[in-house]
Amino acid sequence: MEESMIYVVAKNFIQADKVETVRSLASELITETRKEDGCISYNLVQDREEPGILTFIEEWESKDHLDAHMKTAHFVKIFPELLKCTLKEGEVNIYNQF
Amino acid sequence: MEESMIYVVAKNFIQADKVETVRSLASELITETRKEDGCISYNLVQDREEPGILTFIEEWESKDHLDAHMKTAHFVKIFPELLKCTLKEGEVNIYNQF
Repeated sequence: MEESMIYVVAKNFIQADKVETVRSLASELITETRKEDGCISYNLVQDREEPGILTFIEEWESKDHLDAHMKTAHFVKIFPELLKCTLKEGEVNIYNQF
Repeated sequence: MEESMIYVVAKNFIQADKVETVRSLASELITETRKEDGCISYNLVQDREEPGILTFIEEWESKDHLDAHMKTAHFVKIFPELLKCTLKEGEVNIYNQF
């Protein structure tokens, strides 16, 4: 097990008429993800100037916990639905504490 | 006072030989900023694949608190020093809870 804490910033560019669809999809994803082992925080936020920019800001106890998250039933079900709402490829950065 | 909570993700692209300079500059900035009224969290993180990407992830009680932060003596002193260590313009997003 790799033990250092991990931060994720996953920026998504959402079609204007799909923002409320994302709200509903993300609601279930957030509820289920926050119950996962190793999830310290998991938030979806909206850019104040560009409402189509919706970004997940996440903290995980380790990279292994993040990897496990991406194999959960809720992630595997909901993430492809979120992708259908995007305009273009998103930007994901995975960080360590500096 | 605008009261809704604010998230900031400020991504910086740092010159390879200036990463440790940034560590030292940021250390003082982080210590002082965490004492500020309205600062919920203030972290500097490093991309796991591109160590020159150093990103501040911040949570503030309100936009007014964030605005006040950018006028503090420590920010006004240290931020221009950080800019001197960058390769190119950074990317800042200011978010509301979605």
